[in-house]
Amino acid sequence: MTSTSLYLTQASAPLTHAVEVMNEFGEKYELAIPSERALTVYVDKRELITLMTLGARPEWLVLGYLLNQRLVSGLDDIESITVDWEVGAAAVKTRSGVADLEQKTARRVVTTGCGQGSVFGDMMDGLEQLTLPDTRITQGQLYSIVNAIRLQQSVYKTAGSVHGCALFDGEELLLFVEDVGRHNAIDTIAGWMALNGKQSAGKVLYTTGRLTSEMVVKAAQMGIAVAVSRSGMTQMGHAVAQRLGLCAIGRATNKRFVCFSAMDRFELQPELAGLNLRAAA
Amino acid sequence: MTSTSLYLTQASAPLTHAVEVMNEFGEKYELAIPSERALTVYVDKRELITLMTLGARPEWLVLGYLLNQRLVSGLDDIESITVDWEVGAAAVKTRSGVADLEQKTARRVVTTGCGQGSVFGDMMDGLEQLTLPDTRITQGQLYSIVNAIRLQQSVYKTAGSVHGCALFDGEELLLFVEDVGRHNAIDTIAGWMALNGKQSAGKVLYTTGRLTSEMVVKAAQMGIAVAVSRSGMTQMGHAVAQRLGLCAIGRATNKRFVCFSAMDRFELQPELAGLNLRAAA
Repeated sequence: MTSTSLYLTQASAPLTHAVEVMNEFGEKYELAIPSERALTVYVDKRELITLMTLGARPEWLVLGYLLNQRLVSGLDDIESITVDWEVGAAAVKTRSGVADLEQKTARRVVTTGCGQGSVFGDMMDGLEQLTLPDTRITQGQLYSIVNAIRLQQSVYKTAGSVHGCALFDGEELLLFVEDVGRHNAIDTIAGWMALNGKQSAGKVLYTTGRLTSEMVVKAAQMGIAVAVSRSGMTQMGHAVAQRLGLCAIGRATNKRFVCFSAMDRFELQPELAGLNLRAAA
Repeated sequence: MTSTSLYLTQASAPLTHAVEVMNEFGEKYELAIPSERALTVYVDKRELITLMTLGARPEWLVLGYLLNQRLVSGLDDIESITVDWEVGAAAVKTRSGVADLEQKTARRVVTTGCGQGSVFGDMMDGLEQLTLPDTRITQGQLYSIVNAIRLQQSVYKTAGSVHGCALFDGEELLLFVEDVGRHNAIDTIAGWMALNGKQSAGKVLYTTGRLTSEMVVKAAQMGIAVAVSRSGMTQMGHAVAQRLGLCAIGRATNKRFVCFSAMDRFELQPELAGLNLRAAA
């Protein structure tokens, strides 16, 4: 699909782990909880960061992380990503190094979400010129997306405590990814998109987690103009979405939702919402 | 309550923010979403970190953050914490500086949870010698805690998209804190405990969020031996709780829960669980 000769390992690992628990009746039994692994990323033998991950698709995760952090600009910058769970390491070999690695990773911010982000001013750096594609979504497509997620087999259903992210083309599910942090899940999607040469036009991002500023920024960096969440939105996420014209839809369950921003991208079909629901609302 | 002359501002700020949304019927109205503010922490005029916060109790948050990160060892190290929302800054003035500030904040890890943490080995540094107090919890106390949280007025109920943390002494609610990140909420509790000279023995931490490794580590650092969550647990959170003998209770809703670790701290009263629930289980 791609023209590069990027080498990736395929180091997946068990996604759940059984532990003994005791319930309210004093009954002891085994319960599955999500795996959580430390994956330290080395770029050209220099330690960059440690990601805590479920471990389903570590190579896509590392690639997407590097892309979303703007540490590399594309697949051509990378020669190989080698993940070894024995030592919890992802070795990234670049073709010609990463310029200003120190400077690019200097600022430390504790964000709302699961991981690293940056504050509004920094976040908007390089995004002000960003033009999102003319992606639109109909109410019918939104309902199909929510339904597809409902039917999806998942670690969440068996073990809980993970976030899911999915990429849709219109209402067609392309990829569903779970991780212990929702940032990892979206980074994994970014890696997969790059590897498969997917264009961002027409794509819709779904997340089980909140639409925080970092999630909105990551979606925008990936060129995705519509983001849907089962959960809500924080103030800075809203501010960024409004500024970028990204259509953020939250609280999407069954037939209900709210559209927070860029409402012109959303095609209402209120007749699909159902009269019974309206009466109950 | 304390013997120090620590000066704190009291810079709270509105916790919600109204935005215009559109629902599934095309109706537009105002909806409250949680506020989210960037608070950059300066220690003796050096920029340390930027926290994204709801902004309810920024001084307690900054104090608890410094304590939980082991950047200061107690109130006596600090002369003042001055928060100014106009510039989004918290100025911390120490009495005699922070030794090795650079080194202590050098390692960057993207953790599962909302913010900064560290991997297992690093996390366990300085915790191996930690002895948690002989805190126990009865099933009746657990049910009282879950019920108290259910009745609590909250930003979550009006605006969603925040995490809540609470500190209990047995079943008595001492403090309930919400924030856009659950790490901020627990740090705020740590700050409040220090300011009010609260001992950790007998205390129970409640969180709406998952019990990840960082949450377990923070609770342990605060000397809290019992942690309760509405949500579940990740593998590394479980590993840390087992190692430290911290009683982690998850999926706590109504009469149901699972005890994940240090079950000897939990006093079963299965008769309180109710026969009807058992039949339905």
